[in-house]
This record gives sequence, structure tokens and C-alpha cells, in this order.
Amino acid sequence: MNREIFKHYDMITGNNYIGNKLSSKGTKTYKTFNPQLNIENEHVFTEATDQEINEAVTLASNAFKILQTISGKQKADFLNAIADEILDLDETLIQMYSSETGLPEGRAKGERGRTIFQLRSFADLVKEGSWVEAAIDTAIPDRKPISKPDLRKMFVPLGPVVVFGASNFPLAYSTAGGDTASALGAGCPVIVKSHPMHAGTGELVASAIIKAAGKTGMPNGVFSNLNSSGIDVGVQLVQHPEVKAVGFTGSIRGGRSLYDLASQRKEPIPVFAEMGSINPVVILPEALKKRGKSLAKTYAGSITLGTGQFCTNPGLLLGIKGKGLSNFIQNLSVEILKKEPSCMLHPNIIGAYESNKQKTISQRGLRIVADYNPDVKSNYARQTVTTVEGSTFLENITLHQEVFGPFSLVVQCENEEQLETIISKLEGQLTGTVIAENNEAMQYISIVEALQNRVGRIIYNGVSTGVEVCTSMQHGGPYPASTDSRFTAVGIHSIKRWVRPFSYQNWPDSLLPDELKNENPLSISRMINGMQTTNKIK
Amino acid sequence: MNREIFKHYDMITGNNYIGNKLSSKGTKTYKTFNPQLNIENEHVFTEATDQEINEAVTLASNAFKILQTISGKQKADFLNAIADEILDLDETLIQMYSSETGLPEGRAKGERGRTIFQLRSFADLVKEGSWVEAAIDTAIPDRKPISKPDLRKMFVPLGPVVVFGASNFPLAYSTAGGDTASALGAGCPVIVKSHPMHAGTGELVASAIIKAAGKTGMPNGVFSNLNSSGIDVGVQLVQHPEVKAVGFTGSIRGGRSLYDLASQRKEPIPVFAEMGSINPVVILPEALKKRGKSLAKTYAGSITLGTGQFCTNPGLLLGIKGKGLSNFIQNLSVEILKKEPSCMLHPNIIGAYESNKQKTISQRGLRIVADYNPDVKSNYARQTVTTVEGSTFLENITLHQEVFGPFSLVVQCENEEQLETIISKLEGQLTGTVIAENNEAMQYISIVEALQNRVGRIIYNGVSTGVEVCTSMQHGGPYPASTDSRFTAVGIHSIKRWVRPFSYQNWPDSLLPDELKNENPLSISRMINGMQTTNKIK
Repeated sequence: MNREIFKHYDMITGNNYIGNKLSSKGTKTYKTFNPQLNIENEHVFTEATDQEINEAVTLASNAFKILQTISGKQKADFLNAIADEILDLDETLIQMYSSETGLPEGRAKGERGRTIFQLRSFADLVKEGSWVEAAIDTAIPDRKPISKPDLRKMFVPLGPVVVFGASNFPLAYSTAGGDTASALGAGCPVIVKSHPMHAGTGELVASAIIKAAGKTGMPNGVFSNLNSSGIDVGVQLVQHPEVKAVGFTGSIRGGRSLYDLASQRKEPIPVFAEMGSINPVVILPEALKKRGKSLAKTYAGSITLGTGQFCTNPGLLLGIKGKGLSNFIQNLSVEILKKEPSCMLHPNIIGAYESNKQKTISQRGLRIVADYNPDVKSNYARQTVTTVEGSTFLENITLHQEVFGPFSLVVQCENEEQLETIISKLEGQLTGTVIAENNEAMQYISIVEALQNRVGRIIYNGVSTGVEVCTSMQHGGPYPASTDSRFTAVGIHSIKRWVRPFSYQNWPDSLLPDELKNENPLSISRMINGMQTTNKIK
Repeated sequence: MNREIFKHYDMITGNNYIGNKLSSKGTKTYKTFNPQLNIENEHVFTEATDQEINEAVTLASNAFKILQTISGKQKADFLNAIADEILDLDETLIQMYSSETGLPEGRAKGERGRTIFQLRSFADLVKEGSWVEAAIDTAIPDRKPISKPDLRKMFVPLGPVVVFGASNFPLAYSTAGGDTASALGAGCPVIVKSHPMHAGTGELVASAIIKAAGKTGMPNGVFSNLNSSGIDVGVQLVQHPEVKAVGFTGSIRGGRSLYDLASQRKEPIPVFAEMGSINPVVILPEALKKRGKSLAKTYAGSITLGTGQFCTNPGLLLGIKGKGLSNFIQNLSVEILKKEPSCMLHPNIIGAYESNKQKTISQRGLRIVADYNPDVKSNYARQTVTTVEGSTFLENITLHQEVFGPFSLVVQCENEEQLETIISKLEGQLTGTVIAENNEAMQYISIVEALQNRVGRIIYNGVSTGVEVCTSMQHGGPYPASTDSRFTAVGIHSIKRWVRPFSYQNWPDSLLPDELKNENPLSISRMINGMQTTNKIK
């Protein structure tokens, strides 16, 4: 390795951050893996012990009390400082990221950009302050038969939050990703259970957060980063009585396990798990006829994007049987075989890809239409497209499961009715896509409506890959796309996962938080007696 | 009974409403009870069968599809029509209510007023339309490196909702209560599991809803009312795959059971259970000294209000040991014994009151300071006040449990530190109250902050009984006050329990719901590219 560009290289200690203290009391160690080189990376990481876990939670619990008194502006400074410190890690971070994921530099930089954007978005949000949705109903002392009290409500943070790093987004949905940024913005201390596949990237980012916390006067314990190679650390964290919420991005099995643990606690806590999805794409007949060829090209790209390692990867294409669909399948086969295979994140990930693919392929009635054949490097995934009859798909629930990787299944439906039935029987999905010509969607409106009931986001004439970070984004859908379809994991509204409404009744103005004071010192927008306004209360 | 004033008396059939059809296929029957007269009421109710339950859910599921195409104005007409039909039940409803609860006419009318107000509030809300929190980010086709899509988000309903009637609020938190009104407003069909103690009141209100649904063109299945004397109907409803959310008001045991059932489903669903609470009241030293006598009078009233059958009943009074607290206890004893005992809702309720009270009283170190002695009528509750040392309270978790009824426990804390420790060890509560003189709360700020972390609403110099229906009300608190502290059960924001955000990406304007169309035909307030506005999009 070229150590010169690694100006922070010696920062990697393999330790946990228990608050701002590096710590490695345990004996269980592990290394990360470079899938491109097909070798283990050199750093050794030490898994957190029970004692370290408890220390981290206790620190978080104490930090929470202090965080509650900290202004939005201070939290914004902290989030912006995290962004600055991450940028300061520069090439070290990019190289570490690539060495632990096999993903190219461009992707690393793109994801870093997204992470920085998210941090700064939440900084802007909490600095401005109106996100707390302050609502005030002033008193009516002479109301009959009883006087009306003064009531003032706003969001307050839930308490310490545990964030599980995602295998496929080491930056944007891990250590300082969307879950962490939104939780810190809300005023919740965060304990990250670092993803074992990118523990080095995790430690670098954790060091950036700890530095930023120090520079901006955050209480010790506002952030901890715990190494973990198996499930023990996560289990203990989710069961800890002082932990008040959990963020997770990963498999259905993993997310459901955490949800079950959390809901079986004496005090159940919310788990926001963003899990699997096959992201059905409905291609209507006219579109198939007019644009089959270009659609095939577009979807060959979408299916193989990032080696198919996106939660929004289109794993299920649905059409009505006929020449248009047959041609499309033919063209998709040609196009997808033109793609150069690429590396998956880890031998375990490609192992799961191969075995899930085999399981699907071995189902009765499934036909392979494209299967990349030539030799590939270790950990490189061969893309595959398959097809099946609608009736076979309906009967066999195994075909409804995600194959995480560059794989897609084209279902050939008998007719419109069968297409609608299939859609209505699908599990919950992050996204659904409708490909249609002018006015064609209207003709198939009951199919479109059925799709809407199964997804969190619906796309017209596009691809589901690419999740824009903006206010109007809903990333999350009916179970098992996520454990709680009522919240988004992407965009500023994801901050609402970590808060609860809180009311003050007849509370003295001097003791109210600034957000609810008569003078409106923060000049935020508030709902006062049913009217949204930035006015003071006289 | 005086049948003349019962103009709808013959409406009571004892049947279930399966959609708009009266049905009683079952063999399990039961009657309600008049606690004032200490006799069973005459009507016979037939519990819903498995088949009827499934029919109701299937109808609801079909109605849901139609409801999704119905405008806010139509839903408002429906809610207002329910209010009109309930008022039209007039004295029949009031008499039925009293005969099934033992509560006086004044309370019945007050609760009816609250119910009507809630229905009309949700009607106004959904008619106006901005509650869907529409957010729009318009496209930037030439953004680099990739174009930005058009994204539009709003709340959409979850699907069929099951509402469990509350024993202590036959109108405001039962058949057409807050849960039902908010769910219907959101666009979710509702299946009520009628509370067995007031099945007649339930059937009358159900008939009003069914009439209103007919008059305003709602789809059959938008509402069903199922009789049930045990837990079977509720269990089956919560486990039904087509049911998407549950509202409940009642005991911790009941609420937790439903929560566990719902979270163990293949597709877990949200349960909004508003459960027990002892509503701690902290009376600070100066206030005790200056206003001990009047506070004793106020709290004697609050503890016995509605025979103590409010979830916000002050079951725990906390003070620092001393002359002020001793005098307060003495005065409270005198004042509470002046109160005339009143009737509880049902023999089972008073049975539970007596046994829970006995269990608490039998705990080591507890001292009775006031216990109403004279003979009382059957089902009338004797009010009781007890006291205990802070250290004993801290050690014995049994003393932290709710005794539902006119009962309160005064904890005499050693000092400020012990008071804070006790507060921080309490389970989650709906409310907390601070009684203080000028500037006194500031002196005890860490106690106030500890209390804030344990409750959903904090009250200054008042009583917790009386839950104002308004936007700024938070009714719900950390577990076990409710299963989901992130939502309120009272006020217009309670509609958010029944919805999820949904995004449209690059969706044709003509196919968008009115709330998201460029023209803004509903003239609602929307967040467009980060600005809240009623403007159209050009």
C-alpha cells in the first residue's frame, strides 16, 4: 500500500470509541477484507466487551441530559464540524473505503458527498429550528363551563439511539450516515455498532465525529463506536434499558431479529429497520412495444448498478405476455451480457448472492434467459436474468424473495387481471415503478393503485435506483421493506424517528424552551391557535 | 324504565354491525350491568363469530380501496353526519350511557359534547386538507452529475384499523371516539371491538355511524361494530392480515397483550395503546407552606373526580418531608373524607379497585391516612389516601403501580436528591405536575427536568385531570403510559397514527392526487422546494 497518501493511516487503532476514549478490553478480534485483492486487510479490530458496551450506554445516557439543554445552533455546529472532519480525512478515507468494499473511488467520493450533504442538511434544519413543529394554544381563562389552559407542544428527543452500520453504504448509512446525522440533530446521543466489513472506514469516521464533538463542546458520550464481528454486541445494545431507539439498514432477517428483541423488552422501543425489497417494475404493453429496446438497455444498467447492491435494485420486472415482452426479454438478455461484471462487497455477500440465486433458479418453472458465463475474478458477480409465468410466480413465494446482487426476474403475466393479482400479493416494497406511454397508466389504473398499496415510493418512467436526498423523499415502505412504514430513512423528515411530542400546560414563560416562549426568540414558524406564523405572542 | 323518552329504544338488537348489516350468527351472549341499580340490564348481546369477524375485515379491506378515492370534503361530510346522528339519539343515548356506567347525566352530556367536538374537529381538518403535509421538490433536469427528479410526498392511510372501546369513556374513546374519528378522517375503515360493559351505548353509536355512512355515500364496510365479552374477538382482529393498525385505551395488561400479538405477526402492525398512569405530582416546599390547605382541597377533588376513573388521575403525590408536607397530608385527609363516595363503572372495576388497593395497603411501610369508613351503596368506591417514606417507595416497585379509582399515595422524600432519584426511577407517565411558588421551580430545575423525561405532558400549578382537546395536547407518554410515545391519542395530530408518507417520483400531474397537483386545486398549504406556501406550481 502507498502509505504516503494515508496521512491518517496511523489513526487506525482497531479500538472502540467509548465516548472520546479509545478502548479495547476484549480478546475477540477480526480483520476486514479486500474483495478486489481477495485478501484480508492488515488492521486488527477488537470487539467491544459487555463492560465497554455498558460504559458507552451510560455515557450516552448522561450526555443526553446535557444535550437536551444545547441549542439548535450548537448542534448544527457539531454536525458541520463532523462534515469538515470527514473531508479532512481526505484520501485516507477514500482508500480505506475502497480497500474494505471493493467499490471504486468514484463511488466512494459520491457516497462521501452524499454523507456530507446529509450532515449539512440536518445542520441547516436544526439551526433554523422550525422542525420541532411547535404548536401553541393560548389560554381562555373565562371559557365556560371550564377555563381553557395554555398548552404548548414541540418535539423532544427520545434518548440514546443505537445505529447499525450498513454493509452496502459504509459512509451514507453507517457511522456518520443518515441515521446518525438525524439522531444527533434531534438531540439523541448515538452509539454505532460498526459494520465488521468496513471497521476501518468506521473507525476513521468515528474519529472525525469525536474530534468534531471535542471542537464544538459536545458532552462526552454524545457518540460511541463499538466494534463487533457477530451479533452479540448488537443484541446487548438493543436490550439495554437506557437505549431508546434503533436504526438499522440490512437484511430482513437481521432487521426482524432486532425488531423482535426490541418489542420483547420490558419497555419496547422503536426499531427503524430498512430491509429488503425487490422493487417491482410494471412495464405496460404500449411502452414495451414502442420503447422495449431502450428500456432493456436502461434496465440492464439499473440491475447491475453497484453490482446490484442497492436496496432499490429492480429485482422484479412485470409485464403482460406477448411479443413486446418477449422482445424486451431478448433485448435485456443481450444488454445485460454486455455489462462487465464487478466486485461485490465481501466473500460473504457474493456467497449469499450465489446461493440465493441458485435457490431461485432451482424453482420449478423458472427459466434463465441470460447468465454471464465467462470466467470472472474472485468476488466478482455474474449477472443473471430469469423469467417465469405469472401463475407459477403466484404459487411460489420463494420467487418473491430478494436475491441481493445483479439479478432480476421477469414475470410474464397472462393478462391484466393476473398482473393486478400478483401485485396485490407482493410483500411490502420500498419502491414500485410504472413504465407507460402517454395515457397508458390511466388505462391500467387499478394496477397502478394496487402497486401504490404495496410500496413507499412510486416512480413513473424511470428507475428505482438512485434515492434523492430531499424533503419529499419517502424511503421506507410497508413491511418487510421497513419495520415502520410511517417514517422515512432518507431526507430531513427522517429526524422524526428520534423524537416524541411533549406538552407544557400553563408553564411559566421563563421556564419554557426558546421554541415555545411568547417572544419567539428563535423566530421559528409555529402553529398558534390554529394559524402557522412566526409572530410573537403578546 | 321509562320507555317514553327512549325514542330509539327498540333500536337495540344486541346484534353486530358487519358493515351496514345487523348480524348475530353466534351463540355466546352477554348483558351489560347497571352499577347504580346493581342489576343486569335487559338487552342481550351476541358475540361476533369468527365468520363475522372475517366478513367485517373483508368488507373493510374492500371499502379501503374506495375510501382512498374519496375527497376530504366527503370524509368531512361523513364525520359531521356521524355527529348529527349521535345528537339525534338524544336522551336515549344519555340514558343508555348512564344505565351502563353508573355515571351521571352531566358526565354523559359532557362526554357526548367532547365526542361531537372531536368528530367536527377532524371534519374541519380533512376538509381543509393541509394535514397531509404535502411536500414537493421540483425537478432540476440539468443538475450535475445527475438530473434531479420531481418528488412529491403526502400522507396516505394505512388500511383497516381496529379500535377497542374504553371502559371509562363509552363515547369519547369508544365507538365514535377519538380513535375512530381520526382513523376515518385519515381514510381508514374502522372495525370497533365494542366494550362489553357498554355494548348498548356502543350499538346506539354504531347505528349512528352506519346511518351517517349511508347518507353520505360511504362504501359498505367503512365501519363495523363487533360485540365481544372476552378476549377472543380482539385477538382474532389484531392477528388478521388485512388489519393494519390498532387503537386501544385501557389497562397495561390489555394493551401490552395486544402490542405483543401485533408485533409477533408476520407483518407487524402499530398498536397505539393508551394505558395506565399514576401521574406524579411534585409539590415543592414553598407551595406546601403557602398553599397547603387549598392544594389539599384541590387534590381531594382531583383524586375523586369521576370516582378516580381517569387515566390522568393523580395517584402519586411527592413532597419533601417536613411540617409543610405533614400539614398537607393532614388537610388532604380531612378534605377527601368530606367527598361523597360515588359509583364505579362495573362490579369488575370496583372489584379490581378493592383488590389493588388492598395489595398496595398491605405493603410494608405504607400508612393509611384517610379511608372512607361509612357504609356505601353497592359498587360505590371508598376513597383512600396513604403515605410512605421515600426510601420504602424506592425499594418497592409494587407501590409504583396504578390503583385505578379514588386512591392516592403521598411519598415523603428525605430530601431533594431522593425526590429526584424517585422521579427518575418512575415508569413512563401520561402527565407530571409541578406545584410551585414564584421562581421555586427554577430552584428545583433538575427535579423538573427528571420529571420531563418520564412524562408526555407537564403541568404547572394545576391538576392533571382534564385533557383539553386541542392541537397542542400530547396525550401519551413513555411506556407504559402508551405503547408509542411518538403519537398523541387526543387532538388533531392523533390522525398521524393512521397514515404513512408516500412519494411520487416524476408522476404525471393528471394522475397525482389533488393535494400534489401543480394547480393546487385544494388550495392547501404545501412545502415546495423548502418553502411553506399555498402557491401553484408553474
